[in-house]
Amino acid sequence: MTTATAGPTVRPAETDAMRRALELAATDGLVLGPNPRVGCVLLDADGATIAEGFHRGAGTPHAETVALANARAAAGPDAARGATAVVTLEPCAHTGRTGPCAQALVDAGVGRVVFAQPDPNLVATGGGALLHAAGVDVVGGVLGDEARTLNAVWTRAMELGRPVVTWKVAASLDGRTAAADGTSRWITSAAARADVHRLRASCDTVLVGTGTVAADDPSLTVRDADLTGPQPLRAVMGRRELPPSSRLAVPADDGTETLHLRTHDPREALEALWAADRRHVLLEGGATLAAAFWRAGLVDEMVAYVAPVLLGAGPAAVGDLGITTIAGAARLDVVDVALLAAGTPGTPGTAGADGRADAGPTETNVRLTLRPRKES
Amino acid sequence: MTTATAGPTVRPAETDAMRRALELAATDGLVLGPNPRVGCVLLDADGATIAEGFHRGAGTPHAETVALANARAAAGPDAARGATAVVTLEPCAHTGRTGPCAQALVDAGVGRVVFAQPDPNLVATGGGALLHAAGVDVVGGVLGDEARTLNAVWTRAMELGRPVVTWKVAASLDGRTAAADGTSRWITSAAARADVHRLRASCDTVLVGTGTVAADDPSLTVRDADLTGPQPLRAVMGRRELPPSSRLAVPADDGTETLHLRTHDPREALEALWAADRRHVLLEGGATLAAAFWRAGLVDEMVAYVAPVLLGAGPAAVGDLGITTIAGAARLDVVDVALLAAGTPGTPGTAGADGRADAGPTETNVRLTLRPRKES
Ligand SMILES: NC(=O)c1ccc[n+]([C@@H]2O[C@H](COP(=O)([O-])OP(=O)(O)OC[C@H]3O[C@@H](n4cnc5c(N)ncnc54)[C@H](OP(=O)(O)O)[C@@H]3O)[C@@H](O)[C@H]2O)c1
Ligand SMILES: NC(=O)c1ccc[n+]([C@@H]2O[C@H](COP(=O)([O-])OP(=O)(O)OC[C@H]3O[C@@H](n4cnc5c(N)ncnc54)[C@H](OP(=O)(O)O)[C@@H]3O)[C@@H](O)[C@H]2O)c1
Repeated sequence: MTTATAGPTVRPAETDAMRRALELAATDGLVLGPNPRVGCVLLDADGATIAEGFHRGAGTPHAETVALANARAAAGPDAARGATAVVTLEPCAHTGRTGPCAQALVDAGVGRVVFAQPDPNLVATGGGALLHAAGVDVVGGVLGDEARTLNAVWTRAMELGRPVVTWKVAASLDGRTAAADGTSRWITSAAARADVHRLRASCDTVLVGTGTVAADDPSLTVRDADLTGPQPLRAVMGRRELPPSSRLAVPADDGTETLHLRTHDPREALEALWAADRRHVLLEGGATLAAAFWRAGLVDEMVAYVAPVLLGAGPAAVGDLGITTIAGAARLDVVDVALLAAGTPGTPGTAGADGRADAGPTETNVRLTLRPRKES
Repeated sequence: MTTATAGPTVRPAETDAMRRALELAATDGLVLGPNPRVGCVLLDADGATIAEGFHRGAGTPHAETVALANARAAAGPDAARGATAVVTLEPCAHTGRTGPCAQALVDAGVGRVVFAQPDPNLVATGGGALLHAAGVDVVGGVLGDEARTLNAVWTRAMELGRPVVTWKVAASLDGRTAAADGTSRWITSAAARADVHRLRASCDTVLVGTGTVAADDPSLTVRDADLTGPQPLRAVMGRRELPPSSRLAVPADDGTETLHLRTHDPREALEALWAADRRHVLLEGGATLAAAFWRAGLVDEMVAYVAPVLLGAGPAAVGDLGITTIAGAARLDVVDVALLAAGTPGTPGTAGADGRADAGPTETNVRLTLRPRKES
């Protein structure tokens, strides 16, 4: 693929169009599924906009196709001949649910393509090379960082070739998830639990081990945060069957069944989730399952809710990581620290829903977002 | 005692003088020992300043005495006759190392006393009543909150009738103070350890259990922070003798011996420290001793250094608190959250002094300051 660096070859009208394409891609309320946000603007030779388009999510046409269709609807079949396509992601070269966009651009007679982010797809490479081979002038990397940020998790997942894994843990200040007798309602505050629902809403899958199902009978639904798309897929990992009376044994309100991953191998579980079009898994525990993911090097991010509570005894939030001495300590970087105070939007009573009357403690909780350090 | 509320009876010149007295009290570099910061301004009938004074710490004259002496030095023995004394703390009525200030003000012929904070002394009450009985006009509570803030720890100690106890703990995110094999150098970062030295410098006593002496042989000195006064007193609690070869078994550089409190009773230990003029104890651990203080309700503040490190196993930072079920959880309020990043003043290499070459990890650590919730 020939990708010139951004700079002298890019006209101001193209950069402006890229900003507009990024805006289109960022349209609120889209239900993207496993797909990225993409925007496209078609410019004529003078840099005036011919048509625009953006991708609305899996099963719908890609941004370039939408823009080409809009151009044709407005100005006939040759509307895009000689045009410049400005698109936030390198046009695809593979045939998925829609045809390859690179070919569609060639067929439409587009003379030049300016894109932002190179296709991070490990399997099918992008359409830059296809376009170039067809004689189209191609420039990549224009506002590439902005485009990558727009699809940060998706990009990471494509680069990894598996869903991104965020491990959520909620614990007392001394690292316990329950008191000595196993009671744990509530350690974290209502505001912290509401925040977990927001976190769930930002992922497409919520995963727990069979041990958590047996202990807590969770529903794993988003109840307390805005959800534009469907509920995250509910997934359970482990060989035990789900108790028929458990909340996860019955389909969700939208009819979706729980995905039961009958394995102990985190990589195998992620492969199955990837095949089910999952890109972002919230690993909600328990400690045993989370430790298995950690040991396999499959935790990309950790979100720890720390309650200002001491227990002095009780089950540990973090299971055996195979660390015996301090030199082997698992080290992370703190990416963000947030205080979750009572009065945070959507707080009391709501997070403790599930028919539970007691909304729980009101102390300010601390949320740490961390990223595992890569071995150096 | 008759203490009128601040307001109509207080002249603007008196409020101004109180601000000045607070400034004097806050003078940098004082070595106060167990005593509070106090400032005093003497005003004539027109509200003009006759003289000023402030207290420089234990063993030196009180602020009122200093101001009276300054007045006499400037304008003779009757300089304060009919004057108004504006003082940040209710004049004392007891005879300590210096005579009672209330009597000194009466003797000097002062006609009116305006003070900020009432004397919080549980034993000897303040001099307001003495002054009033002697026919002096007395007003209290003028900028009282400011005055209290200036001596927050001292005030709390006087109200409690014992030293204030700050419990410091440093742990991994999963609440452990060492790895499974006992190694713990380093879990927290150099910046966090430097911050511990600042914390020590703000206390007058550092206390550990004999278990920590046996395990760590700490020196418990302030090495890495500005220290205006003497090193904090080093205190050890427990019945075991200190190993003769331990750092705490030999006097500090300034000749001060370690105070060995041969008891298991935290209250008894605090009484001994109070008798030794201690007002603010930094309880540095270990987990056993800290748990004993917690169970006795003798922790006033907690400072937790949380390192973004996971261990998955190893000794717990918090010992058995006698909590068996979640309803009995020890709850605190988060008072402050600070990020301690590498590059924080006085960081690398220094905190790990004691002849240790390795300054340790550089990850950002999180410092939580918490206050136990009072039973409701
Ligand atoms: N505070 C929090 O954030 C939080 C979140 C979730 C849960 N929890 C608590 O955690 C507790 C449950 O924790 P847990 O550790 O017992 O349960 P868990 O981690 O949810 O489940 C453990 C089970 O997962 C299966 N499994 C799947 N892959 C595995 C692997 N690689 N290695 C080992 N086992 C694997 C095994 O079940 P099979 O025998 O079926 O194969 C195993 O028994 C509950 O008390 C719950 O309340 C707390
Ligand atoms: N991360 C941190 O912030 C931190 C800070 C300090 C220590 N540590 C670690 O903590 C470990 C030591 O902890 P530890 O719990 O063994 O030691 P500790 O709490 O320092 O000392 C325990 C000893 O204190 C004495 N003691 C005094 N009052 C007591 C009471 N009311 N109840 C019970 N014992 C009382 C007993 O000794 P006698 O038999 O002599 O009476 C007891 O064995 C070390 O590994 C150290 O590295 C960590």
